[in-house]
Order: sequence, then C-alpha cells, then structure tokens
Amino acid sequence: MTSAGTADGRDTAVTRVDVDAAVARIAGHVRRTPVSAADPPAGGGALWFKLEQLQQTGTFKARGAVNRIRSAAETGELTAAGVVTASGGNAGVAVAYAAARLGVPAEIFVPTISAPAKVRRLHALGATVVQVGREYAEAYEAATVRADETGAAFCHAYDQPAMVAGAGTLGVELWEQTGGVDTVLVAVGGGGLMAGVAAALDGLARVVGVEPVGAPTLHAALAAGGPTDVTVSGVAADSLGARRLGRIAFDVAVGCGVRSLLVGDDDLVAARRWLWDRYRLVVEHGAAAALAALTADVYRPEPGERVAVVLCGANTDPADLG
Amino acid sequence: MTSAGTADGRDTAVTRVDVDAAVARIAGHVRRTPVSAADPPAGGGALWFKLEQLQQTGTFKARGAVNRIRSAAETGELTAAGVVTASGGNAGVAVAYAAARLGVPAEIFVPTISAPAKVRRLHALGATVVQVGREYAEAYEAATVRADETGAAFCHAYDQPAMVAGAGTLGVELWEQTGGVDTVLVAVGGGGLMAGVAAALDGLARVVGVEPVGAPTLHAALAAGGPTDVTVSGVAADSLGARRLGRIAFDVAVGCGVRSLLVGDDDLVAARRWLWDRYRLVVEHGAAAALAALTADVYRPEPGERVAVVLCGANTDPADLG
Repeated sequence: MTSAGTADGRDTAVTRVDVDAAVARIAGHVRRTPVSAADPPAGGGALWFKLEQLQQTGTFKARGAVNRIRSAAETGELTAAGVVTASGGNAGVAVAYAAARLGVPAEIFVPTISAPAKVRRLHALGATVVQVGREYAEAYEAATVRADETGAAFCHAYDQPAMVAGAGTLGVELWEQTGGVDTVLVAVGGGGLMAGVAAALDGLARVVGVEPVGAPTLHAALAAGGPTDVTVSGVAADSLGARRLGRIAFDVAVGCGVRSLLVGDDDLVAARRWLWDRYRLVVEHGAAAALAALTADVYRPEPGERVAVVLCGANTDPADLG
Repeated sequence: MTSAGTADGRDTAVTRVDVDAAVARIAGHVRRTPVSAADPPAGGGALWFKLEQLQQTGTFKARGAVNRIRSAAETGELTAAGVVTASGGNAGVAVAYAAARLGVPAEIFVPTISAPAKVRRLHALGATVVQVGREYAEAYEAATVRADETGAAFCHAYDQPAMVAGAGTLGVELWEQTGGVDTVLVAVGGGGLMAGVAAALDGLARVVGVEPVGAPTLHAALAAGGPTDVTVSGVAADSLGARRLGRIAFDVAVGCGVRSLLVGDDDLVAARRWLWDRYRLVVEHGAAAALAALTADVYRPEPGERVAVVLCGANTDPADLG
C-alpha cells in the first residue's frame, strides 16, 4: 500500500494487494456468500446476483470489520481496550459481531434517539453500547474521544483502508464464482464497498456506483473534485445515509474510473419489489440501488455483456412485500 | 425406466436415468439455483442450503412441469389441446409458467374458494383458469374429465414419473455444486421432490424426508405399507397439504430407504424465523420443514457429516418476519 495522503495524513490508497491480504484475514470468520445466475437481460449476456445479504449480520460490513480488527492485531494497534466505533446501523452491528467473533471488547457509540431494537441487537452481540448525543455526529465525536482516552482501535464505518479492503474481498469472490464479468453494479453510501470492489477488480472489470438521488455522495464528489457534504433523504437513508463520500473511496473511484449513476426512491422501491416477485429475495432499499440501475433502465448492458449486481444487505422489514 | 406398475397400470419407477433425461429437457427453461455454504453445525462437517426458492414461480415445481410438458411432446402425447392440471397452489403456477414458456395452452382447474390473488397469478401467466367445486377433489375430478374430453396432457401435481424426475434435477445440481454430500434433508408433501432427489442420488447420499406432524404422508405410508390418507392440518397445509403420498414416491422411498422425520408446527415457525434472522432468507412454512429437522434437533448429524438442506419454496407472506 502506497500512501497518497490526506490533510490529516491518513493513508488513502487501497489496492488489490490489500484486498488479497484481507481475503486471508477474513477466511473462516465471515461467509463466502453465493452468487446466483439470474435470467439474462435482452440482448443475451449474463446477469449474476452476488447474494451478500446472506452475510453475517445481514450486510457486507462484516468483511471490513473483521479485516479491520485482525489488521489492528497484526500491527500492534489492538490493545486490551479493544475497539470502538460510532454507528447504530449496519456498521455498528458488524463491528460488534467481528469483535465478539475475535474475542475483543467493543464499545459502540450511538445517538440517544437510536431505535431500541438496534440497541438490543448490539447488546445481544456482547457489545457495550454508549448512547450519547442527539445526532450521529455527536456520537461519532464522543467515540473518537473515547478511543483517544482508552487506546481502543477506532473503527470507521467506511473510510479506513482495512474497512475498504475487507469489503473488496466480495469482489474477489464474485470474480471467482462467476468466472469473470464485464461490469459490477454496486450501491454507494460512504463508498467503502464500491472502492473495495473497484480496487479488487481494477483492470479486470468496470465498476459502476449506483446511488439514490437522495444521497448522491459519489456524484457530488466527482462533480466537486473531492468529497463534499450532501443533504441525505429518502427511503435508503438508513443504510446509504453517509453525508459525504470517504476520502479513500474518492481516490479509488478516480483512480479506477468509477462512474456514478443516480436512481430515484421510486426506482428503489420498485427494484426491491421486483426482486421479491421474481426471485423471492429480500433486500433493504439501499441494497436495491444497484439492481434499480437495471430495472429502471438507467444502466443498459451492451449485447453479450456480463453484469454482476451486488445485493449488499437485507436489514429491512419485509412486511410491505406481502 | 422399468415398470413396477400399480393397480391402474401406471409406471411407478423413476431412476437416475430418468432424472438425467430431465436435466437435458429443463436446461434453459428453469433456473440452476445456487447453493450456499452455511455455518457448519457443532462437530464440524458442512451444511449447505440449496436455494430452490429462487426458482421460477418460487418453488421447485417448475422443474417437473417443464419436464412433464417436454416429455409429452417427445412421446406425441402433447396435442393442440395443450395441458390441463388441477391446483390452485404451487403446482398450478408452475404448470402455467412451463406451458407459457413452451408455448403450450394450459387449463388450470381450481376450487371456487381459491384466493383471488392465486387466480390472478395464473391468469397473468396466460393460463385458462376454471373454477369448479368447493373442494380440491372436485376440481381434480373435473380436470381429469376435461383431459379425457380434449386430449390435453394431464399434469399431476406430483405423482407422475416426469414430475418426479424433473424435481430430481435439483438433486443432480446439488451434488455438482457441493462436490458431494452425505445427507439431504427434504420436505415431503406428495413426495415428488423427495422421490426425485432420492432417485437422483441413489447410492450417493442418504435422503431423509421431513414432514409436519399435521401432514405425515410418508410416515403414514411407511407404517401402512403403502400410501394412505392422512388428515391434513397446520401452518404448512398450503404447500405440503397432499392428502396422501404419491405411489411413485412410496416406491422410490422404499427402494432407496428414505426415512421420515416429523416436526411440529412450532418447529416450522421457529425454523422459518431462524433462517430470516441468521441468513436473511425467506421460505414458506412447508419449505422450512427440512431445516426444522436440524434446528429442532430432530436430525443430529454425525461429526464431520456433510448435510444439505433443500429450501424448496417461498410462496409466502413475509410480513410476520418484520
């Protein structure tokens, strides 16, 4: 890993070498999720779904969390203070799972308004939950202060090399399982998954980021020449609700030529329903973004093109699919 | 295929040869559904899920329906009158799908009490729906009369060699995809799937039939020395609601040494919930039977045993999983 560097001196380059190291670290601790051949689109080619919603904790985040903690153990960053993170959502659950799996204490900072069910789930995984602040930003700030105090390894939800490289292991699997694809469609929130897969498949396949119009972090970053705040809204805000793209994700996206496609909330709802009606698969609205690029005709494969759609999570209430 | 024969002279033997022929007939018309490696049980070994709920029409029935219609075309049984069946459930939808896919007219007989949503779904697939009789038995009788009148090929929901052999293609795939297993757990209603998989894997793996205490067709047949009527009740009655085991299923079960394990309604509900909580997969209550044998501790794998669980359908309302 070479250091591109940011204002605060963090390392922002993630490459296939980092992803390959992550593959070794996560083995046995997370699931190798299946791919499913889907009905090919008009014009032939092939369509694959990577069923990452079957992953431990219901999303791809478990990959990065395990890789982050095991990396910290290798470098000596991990102490008896364990790990700390700020997230009442998918990242928090994944860190709690990974910490429990690896026998490491975890403190998860969440806002006081977090849903009791989410807090219970973190407790059930053995994490210490700290509820502080009305908004996520306050919980995040408190978590970083806590990490400085105790020496715990801070786990960022997406903007850390080990989190990105861990997510990228999904790309390596996908490539092996399909025998190769031309294009991978992947949802973008903070951009960790998009960047990981792009780094994993750089020079092998084109990665296209798909994001809701209500949370266009990659779109805005590419337009502005760097990560910039967006106003988050819409049905996918609970999973793709990062306010800005990660610095690592931006650098990888630019380096690998990742494009951004936008889909509307109606497209997300329709794609999620389409997937249940035709394949009896349930995903969360954010995870439907990648599929929506196809079903809403925003991405049109060339004749013969082999396309993989990453279904990255299913922490959702399926009641409305009945 | 050698003819064992029944009272009405039907051929009841189905072997791997028939299943291999079915593999060729269904190719391209139904999906090759994925298998997923699940967390191994205590004591090691391996656990696989065959994700057949991703199949066209949401259950394994599409395999048998395509094989039945293509077989009938090969033997000259299929005329311009097309096919006829009696089923307001999974078999009816599968026959409607297969007929549309193969460009064959289909008449589906259902009781007058059938849910409007089920009738609409058959219409949407292009089938002619005939609502007759208050009970399934009356619709069945009317369908057989209609077949005699028009010369349409009658498709039985499970007790026909082509339906059984078609279902068995799932076993061939499962074997290829896993690299071999010791045991396959499969739900039993009319027994078509159980018999197909047992025929496909005869001499390779042990097949265990799992059925609800409220619909113990295999259990009752093995006890009585032949298919016998049972009283059907319970949460899985909509999919495993056959009143008696098929004759073909009985003969294959005896020939291959298939055992029956019973699980309770509470076990089905718990297994369905377990699968959603841990894997974000949705199945219908009947399809949860095979899994329930493990989660309710009714089937205990030996150390190192490689077990596959067939998740055979998901035509269910997922609302209660929220």
